[in-house]
Amino acid sequence: MKKILITLMLLAGFSGFAQIERVEPPNWWTGFEETELQLMVYGENIGNATPNIDYPGVSIENVEKADSPNYMFIDLEIGDAEAGTFDITFQLEDGSEEVYEYILKSREKPASEYVGFDNTDAIYLITPDRFANGDKSNDSFDFLNEKTKNREDDYGRHGGDIRGIINHLDYIDEMGFTAIWPSPLVINNMKSGSYHGYAMTDFYKVDPRFGTLEEYRELADKAADRGIKLVMDQVANHAGVEHWWMEDLPFEDWINFQEKFENGENLVYSNHRRTTNQDLYASETDKKGMTEGWFVETMPDLNQENPFMAKYLIKNSIWWIETLGLGGIRQDTYPYPDKAFMSDWADAIMTEYPNFNIVGEEWSLNPLLIRYWQDGVDNGYDSNLKSTMDFAMQNKIVTGLKAEETWGTGLVEIYEGLANDFAYADPENIMIFPDNHDKSRIYTQLGEDVAKTKMTVAYMAILPRIFQMYYGTEILMDDTENPGDHGLIRTEFPGGWDDSEVNAFTGEGLSEEKTDMQNFVKEVMNYRKNSEAIHSGETKHFAPEDGTYLITRKSGDEVVVLILNKNEEAVKMELDRFSELNLKGKTFKNLISEETFQWEDSLELSEEGVYFFTTKMK
Amino acid sequence: MKKILITLMLLAGFSGFAQIERVEPPNWWTGFEETELQLMVYGENIGNATPNIDYPGVSIENVEKADSPNYMFIDLEIGDAEAGTFDITFQLEDGSEEVYEYILKSREKPASEYVGFDNTDAIYLITPDRFANGDKSNDSFDFLNEKTKNREDDYGRHGGDIRGIINHLDYIDEMGFTAIWPSPLVINNMKSGSYHGYAMTDFYKVDPRFGTLEEYRELADKAADRGIKLVMDQVANHAGVEHWWMEDLPFEDWINFQEKFENGENLVYSNHRRTTNQDLYASETDKKGMTEGWFVETMPDLNQENPFMAKYLIKNSIWWIETLGLGGIRQDTYPYPDKAFMSDWADAIMTEYPNFNIVGEEWSLNPLLIRYWQDGVDNGYDSNLKSTMDFAMQNKIVTGLKAEETWGTGLVEIYEGLANDFAYADPENIMIFPDNHDKSRIYTQLGEDVAKTKMTVAYMAILPRIFQMYYGTEILMDDTENPGDHGLIRTEFPGGWDDSEVNAFTGEGLSEEKTDMQNFVKEVMNYRKNSEAIHSGETKHFAPEDGTYLITRKSGDEVVVLILNKNEEAVKMELDRFSELNLKGKTFKNLISEETFQWEDSLELSEEGVYFFTTKMK
Repeated sequence: MKKILITLMLLAGFSGFAQIERVEPPNWWTGFEETELQLMVYGENIGNATPNIDYPGVSIENVEKADSPNYMFIDLEIGDAEAGTFDITFQLEDGSEEVYEYILKSREKPASEYVGFDNTDAIYLITPDRFANGDKSNDSFDFLNEKTKNREDDYGRHGGDIRGIINHLDYIDEMGFTAIWPSPLVINNMKSGSYHGYAMTDFYKVDPRFGTLEEYRELADKAADRGIKLVMDQVANHAGVEHWWMEDLPFEDWINFQEKFENGENLVYSNHRRTTNQDLYASETDKKGMTEGWFVETMPDLNQENPFMAKYLIKNSIWWIETLGLGGIRQDTYPYPDKAFMSDWADAIMTEYPNFNIVGEEWSLNPLLIRYWQDGVDNGYDSNLKSTMDFAMQNKIVTGLKAEETWGTGLVEIYEGLANDFAYADPENIMIFPDNHDKSRIYTQLGEDVAKTKMTVAYMAILPRIFQMYYGTEILMDDTENPGDHGLIRTEFPGGWDDSEVNAFTGEGLSEEKTDMQNFVKEVMNYRKNSEAIHSGETKHFAPEDGTYLITRKSGDEVVVLILNKNEEAVKMELDRFSELNLKGKTFKNLISEETFQWEDSLELSEEGVYFFTTKMK
Repeated sequence: MKKILITLMLLAGFSGFAQIERVEPPNWWTGFEETELQLMVYGENIGNATPNIDYPGVSIENVEKADSPNYMFIDLEIGDAEAGTFDITFQLEDGSEEVYEYILKSREKPASEYVGFDNTDAIYLITPDRFANGDKSNDSFDFLNEKTKNREDDYGRHGGDIRGIINHLDYIDEMGFTAIWPSPLVINNMKSGSYHGYAMTDFYKVDPRFGTLEEYRELADKAADRGIKLVMDQVANHAGVEHWWMEDLPFEDWINFQEKFENGENLVYSNHRRTTNQDLYASETDKKGMTEGWFVETMPDLNQENPFMAKYLIKNSIWWIETLGLGGIRQDTYPYPDKAFMSDWADAIMTEYPNFNIVGEEWSLNPLLIRYWQDGVDNGYDSNLKSTMDFAMQNKIVTGLKAEETWGTGLVEIYEGLANDFAYADPENIMIFPDNHDKSRIYTQLGEDVAKTKMTVAYMAILPRIFQMYYGTEILMDDTENPGDHGLIRTEFPGGWDDSEVNAFTGEGLSEEKTDMQNFVKEVMNYRKNSEAIHSGETKHFAPEDGTYLITRKSGDEVVVLILNKNEEAVKMELDRFSELNLKGKTFKNLISEETFQWEDSLELSEEGVYFFTTKMK
């Protein structure tokens, strides 16, 4: 952010005028579809000033005061402007002037080249504070509210940072992942619990404990060099209570229940009744309670129905895409903001970046809701959201693997879960995951059963889905000691700190079991990466029988056959039932054991676990 | 059925020709939209005969032989014909002739007057063998396979019949029900288990143990006199293995897996994997296994892909509607027949009877499937089926009432279940029920908790749904001794047999608890019967809090407020949260206690149970 302040009138001996503290977005670009740009200007009494711009192609269409005198909102039309720098001259009440230099950049690449993640991608989700400490010089800052790191505290800062991710891009690449989704790197200058990143205190600033904007961009570029997309985790629903504007809110309705907050009254929390978004019969009280209540005490709920807030958030998202060259956005707590706004927000982004992708988080086991939020269904709400999250299928898989095999329980729950795909507008654009930063580690979910953990990963990896895995799941990280504990789920990745005895990046000190799992994930992800069958092939599965469940993906000559086997004893699987696949006589390789065999009348499954067969020989 | 056989050639001294045993449908009507009529003719060697008709407006368009020589299918065009009787003259191979007199009737009333059940109706489901024995002379017949009734056997015949239902129409009417759905009354000449009616052995014959066709029509007429609709339970998926045609099937593919049946080989049963009907990835093997496998050993699976079978079943349904003047059809095992056929079947009926209704049975807890089968959604399948069954919501209600009240369990499960209505094309045309002939009695499902049983009934009764209740649920009939046991679920209704010590029709000998429940159901059903608010009012509900859940229906001045209260101690409910309902100052009556009160700031709920308040004063 470049800010030049010229205080003409000071030189002339006058005083008492505003100093402009912020203009946001801090810069913009030429060449967008949307040529209107609203600037938020913040400075003492700036609301009473009159702005002027003299730059070809840029005109001031409208100037709005806020409720606070320290804000001004300027609507610019920049349709015909060329890139360059121009002055915004503010004529203040006392006759003095203040000048702010604003930059209009050229766009670096065509809009079509901002390609979002899709089902050919496997996304590695990282909690940056806990992945790797690449720069020890940025672990603590006296000027921040949470002053020092504390690695003993699961809810304290541990020192992981952007440099740590950059340092291990090769590892991520070699593991076969093609995208990274670090949880938010934007500053959370909170008094505690700032490590997770979801309580932003400045929507345009990187948290210095994570690094700089330049490092964030370096991460994007170095990832791109390896064909790895960078997905940004954004939050439109709320901010952190330490956000700079909380001391001087522009409007009376900038946040929800603002009056209560300002009067120090009891806050109103969200009722979290997310179904009110769809419910034909929901009361107004409950709808309001859902979207307007605060997520938690430390996170003020932004009022997206305020048109200035709406524009602010949209421009902020676009600013990040353009600044970093993003390969996608993950939007937090999708059902909590005003849903009409979320539609506009997604539309604005997708209009600028037609090949982009956004995944919205709706934590629901109900396929009707997963269906509802994805664009392309006729349900009275135009979401413009390409991707939703498959908490439902995740749950079915874990439940099905853990349940006893009966006619209606066990693998059949997975089989019937996948059958729900008929209801989705675009199943391939739904994101599946064994776990994430809010859920128990899959290894813990499955009672520390390695065979079932492998079944989960391989099955999810070959589905017509976007695949996402949480860092460390490849080495069986767990939260078994206290399942579901957020701090524990987000444990340090071994090798990310130089005092680690174990280094999972190099394999040093890693147990045989963890190394085996890591190799398994690596094989499966790397296969997935280049598999036409998984990316775009036909899917077919057969109703589970006798504790086994077979699913195939097929494209041209490439056939992937995955069998989940829950039998602890060896079983012989008769293959006659699968004759419509025309596999007889075809040579398959077991991806893991590398053994080859011919598909004949039966198949011997010697142990519980996953069998990943492919006709693709390399 | 009137059949006149004129054996001209016998008189002339010749022999060896066919005697026509059946022509089906046994009669038809003029004035249908569809003017084509296919007749199935059955008689020895009839396939080699040549039929002739000389009647104005009736022409033979096509004659088809079957694989068996004893069948002939004649396509008639009857578009311009007037009602009357005409001869079908069959010229046999040996030159002889056989004449069959066929009747074309006039339709009794306009098609628009066949009005199907809808959400203004409360349907009483009856297992006729177990409801009331109105005619002891028809209890056993020597010529039937299951020779004698055996009231000691829960799976034997008990003697209940059509006369028994007719005798108690006043009771049903007084209870406030507006429709009856007796399970099938068509003959099941099975060796055992014939009482339930779902193994039909002649699609055009009433089981003599239930009565005659004339009595069936009398039931329809006497019900209609009381404003009660008659719903017929039909089965297009299968027949009973003792069906007359099983000894001499017309085609090689009249039933599925016919060859195995005829060769006495192991039968193939349905895999019951009902999701294959929707599953994008289902294998052909599983799809075929689902729709073509037999339901059970004693029920051959009809092959609706055979076009003669398809026409036979469609005409059979229309024949019954027209013969009885039906007010709806309940179609068994809806996902099991060929679904393209079911679409045609429903379309044919709805085309003839635009105001009719059909409810299809899909026993699924998955709202996506309930949604799928109901007409009006854009999912690549045009079901033409107006009504589906809400097993999902039934389950949510029972689960929610039984579960502990926590943030995510208990009443909120009911609240969130109802929120799924947004996904349905026509929620008001979905049928809800506390129980049915295949499910445990609601009283048993709820652990014999009367308060929860009342909550279930009242809540379901005021929903925007068609309501259905199983006979005897109003007097807390149970199957607690062996939950889910079909024979036990279908226990004799007390008072239906003249040796009963208890008579629930008169109330004689009924326990206080049962009498109280019966009165409760009576009050609720009779209220529902005339309630604009329930029939067509706005629905609004509030997220449950503190063990209470409030839902309202409103139309004009009529407001129904229903509160489910799971608190065992008295609670005071603050009403401020419901202020958007504008009820303050309104006078309400408690439907059950008849107490009146004014809606003010709070409400005292003295005990666990249901509170049914209405502004309607009568």
